[in-house]
Amino acid sequence: MFSEERANAGVTFPKGFKAAGVKAGIKKSGNLDLAMIYTEKEASIAGVFTQNAVAAAPVVVSRAHVATGSAHAVVANAGCANACTGETGLANANKMAELAAKELGCDASDVLVGSTGIIGVNLPMDKVEAGIKAAAAELSDKGSQNAGNAIITTDTYSKACSCEVMLGGKAVRFGAIAKGSGMIQPNMATMLCYITTDAKIASPLLQKALSSIVEVSFNMISVDGDMSTNDTVLVLANGQSEAAEILEDTKEYEIFYHTLEKICQELSKRIAADGEGATKFLTINVTGTKSFADAKTIAMSVAKSPLVKTAFFGQDPNWGRVICAVGYAGVPMVPEKTVIKFGDVTVYANGLGAEYDEEKLAKVMAEHDIVINIDMGLGQESATVWSCDFSYEYVKINGEYHT
Amino acid sequence: MFSEERANAGVTFPKGFKAAGVKAGIKKSGNLDLAMIYTEKEASIAGVFTQNAVAAAPVVVSRAHVATGSAHAVVANAGCANACTGETGLANANKMAELAAKELGCDASDVLVGSTGIIGVNLPMDKVEAGIKAAAAELSDKGSQNAGNAIITTDTYSKACSCEVMLGGKAVRFGAIAKGSGMIQPNMATMLCYITTDAKIASPLLQKALSSIVEVSFNMISVDGDMSTNDTVLVLANGQSEAAEILEDTKEYEIFYHTLEKICQELSKRIAADGEGATKFLTINVTGTKSFADAKTIAMSVAKSPLVKTAFFGQDPNWGRVICAVGYAGVPMVPEKTVIKFGDVTVYANGLGAEYDEEKLAKVMAEHDIVINIDMGLGQESATVWSCDFSYEYVKINGEYHT
Repeated sequence: MFSEERANAGVTFPKGFKAAGVKAGIKKSGNLDLAMIYTEKEASIAGVFTQNAVAAAPVVVSRAHVATGSAHAVVANAGCANACTGETGLANANKMAELAAKELGCDASDVLVGSTGIIGVNLPMDKVEAGIKAAAAELSDKGSQNAGNAIITTDTYSKACSCEVMLGGKAVRFGAIAKGSGMIQPNMATMLCYITTDAKIASPLLQKALSSIVEVSFNMISVDGDMSTNDTVLVLANGQSEAAEILEDTKEYEIFYHTLEKICQELSKRIAADGEGATKFLTINVTGTKSFADAKTIAMSVAKSPLVKTAFFGQDPNWGRVICAVGYAGVPMVPEKTVIKFGDVTVYANGLGAEYDEEKLAKVMAEHDIVINIDMGLGQESATVWSCDFSYEYVKINGEYHT
Repeated sequence: MFSEERANAGVTFPKGFKAAGVKAGIKKSGNLDLAMIYTEKEASIAGVFTQNAVAAAPVVVSRAHVATGSAHAVVANAGCANACTGETGLANANKMAELAAKELGCDASDVLVGSTGIIGVNLPMDKVEAGIKAAAAELSDKGSQNAGNAIITTDTYSKACSCEVMLGGKAVRFGAIAKGSGMIQPNMATMLCYITTDAKIASPLLQKALSSIVEVSFNMISVDGDMSTNDTVLVLANGQSEAAEILEDTKEYEIFYHTLEKICQELSKRIAADGEGATKFLTINVTGTKSFADAKTIAMSVAKSPLVKTAFFGQDPNWGRVICAVGYAGVPMVPEKTVIKFGDVTVYANGLGAEYDEEKLAKVMAEHDIVINIDMGLGQESATVWSCDFSYEYVKINGEYHT
C-alpha cells in the first residue's frame, strides 16, 4: 500500500497541494523549522486536538479555524511551542495565520497553525514573518520532505507516507507528514500530523471519520504517558481528484475510511517506534475482553509501566511485570483465564508462569519489534497499543537538558 | 516525636512484643531474609492489602486471618514473593503460618504471613521451615532491627520508627518496620509495613482507623506508578499498656489516630525517598481544589510523569512539564488561576512562566528534598503526594536484571 517513492512525495502526492520547509532561525540548531502546506482550491478540513486543559495558543486558533469547515493552508514551526504564553501567544498564533494568509491571498481563518518545541517562550515573530514569506515563495509539489523535516524536534527522522486508491474507477490520493516522539525535549512537545487528500468529501463527514480513526490510531500510542499541550491531527481534502463526492454509508466512504485509518495507524506506529531513546518497538495486543475500553485500559497500563518498559530495554522476559500491570489496570480480570505471550511464546497461563523454550524466547526478546499478546479470556473485544522501551537514553534526553 | 534510639527498638518498643530476623538462605545474597514478630498476649489486628487483581498467596492468606480480628504473630520473608504460584503457592503460604503457629503455640489463623521478592517462583519450603524455627528461637525485645533488615530487598536501608504518647495519663507505645522502594528488582516487589502498639483497641475500630489513614499515607506515595501484588500494612495492638481501652469518639482515639497517622506518613515519606535509584525526595502539595480526590489526582499525575521525574533528576526547573501534567490529569483546572512554586519560588502564574530569581531557584533544585506547591485556585481542599526522581540508576536496576 505504501511505497517509499510516494512517501517522499508526502503531502504533495494528492493533486493540487504544494509544500515548503525553510530555515527561519527558530531552532537553535539552524535546521529547517518552518513548514507550509497549501492548496489553491479550498479544502474541506477536519481536526483533532489535544485534550490537555493547558492547550497551546496554536491549538486554540486552529480549533476555531477548523470550525469554519474549510481551509487553504497549514503553517507550522518547530523550536518554540507557543504554549503557556498567554495573550501574547494567542496574538502571535493569530498573526502567523494572518501573515500566511497575506502571502497566499486567502483569509486568515483559512490558515491552520501549529507549533512545537520549547514552552513558555514567545515566538520570535520577526523570524516567523521572514520564514513565512520564504516558505510561500518556495511552495512546490516537491516541498513535502522539507516541510516534514521542518516540523521535527527530537524525532530521529521525519515520518511521511502516501497512497492511492480507486474510488468509482477514479484515482484518489492521500499524503501525510507527521512528527512526535513522546513528550519531547526541550520541554514538552508534540505530535503533529498533517494529512492531505484530493478526495471530495464534506467537512462534517471528514470530521466524523477522523474523530473515529484517531481513537484507534494516535490515541493508541504511548511513549511515556505524557499528553502534550500541542497535539494536532489535521486532514485537508481539496476535491481535486476526478472521483465523485464521497457520501456517507457508501462503499466509497468505506474505502476512504479504511485508507485514512491505515495512514493514521502507520504513522502512529512510526511515532511510537521513534520514541525518545527507544531501542524496541512494542505492539501490545489485548484480546478477550468485554469491551474495547477494557482492552485499551489494560494495554495502556502495560504500555505505560516503567517496569515493563525497562525490562524490554534489558531484553528480560519479565512476564511478572506484565501480569502485574494487567492486574492493577482496574478492569475485570481472572488471573487463571489470562494468557500472556511474547511473540508466539506463552510465558504465563493458568495463573502461573508457563514452561517455555528459553532459546526461542531469548530470540523474541532480542528482536527490535516485539509483540506482547494478552488474552483475558472474558469476551470478544480487543485493542492494540503501540509503544516502545525505556532506556538510559530516555533519561539522558529528558534529564540532561537544562531550560 | 521520633527518636533514633527508639527507632532502633522498632516493633519491640511497645510492651510485650518480640521480634527476630534470621538468614534462611532464601535471598541469593545470603543476607537476613526471614522476619518474625510475636506477642504472647493476643493482639487486635487490622490490615490493608494491595488492590491488584493479581494478589499474591500470602495476601490471600493474611486477608483471611485478619478477618478473625486477632493475631499473635507475623512471619515474613524476602527473596521470593510467592506470587503467581497458584495452588502450590497458597499451600506454602498456609504452611508458613502453620509452621510458625507450631513453634509459637498458637493457631495458624493467628499468624499473618508476608513475602517479597521474585515472582512466579515457589518458596523453598525446607529453608522457610528451618528459618521459622531459628527465628522463633531467637525472638527477643532486641530483634526489631534484624526483623527490619530481613524484609528489605532493593531498599538502601530498613525503615523503622517508634514513639510514645500519653493516653489518660498512661504511656502507650508504637513501633514499626517497613520496606519498599517502588516495584522492586528482581521482579516486582512490595511495600510491607508492620506496626505494633501496646494500646488496647478493638479490632473493628483499629481497622477503621488504619483504612482511613492509609488513604493519606501509603496511598499517597508513588515511585514509578506500579502497584505490587504483595503490598501489605498490618497493625497489631496487644493492649499491654496500662491505658484504658480506646473507644470511638473520644479524645484518646483522636490522639491514637493522629499518632498512627504520623507513623504511617513518616514511613511513607521514607519509602518514597528511598525509591529505586532516587536522588531527590519530592513533596507535591496540591491546594485549592474542590475535593481531596481532585487534589490527589493532580498530585499523582505530576508524581508519575516520567518527564517531571527526569527533569528533577537533571535539576532542571522545568515548570512546563509540571503544568502539562496538571493539564492532562483530567480534573477541572483554569490555567490562569493555577500557581506553581518550586520551594518558595513562583515559577508559573497567570497562565505564564513567572519571572524568578535564577540563583534562588537553582538552589532549590540542588536540594535533596524539594517541595512542589501547586495551587489550583478553585476551592479549599488539598492533598500531598510523596515521590522521587527518575535516574539512570532506576533504568539500570530495572533494565539490567535478568530473570
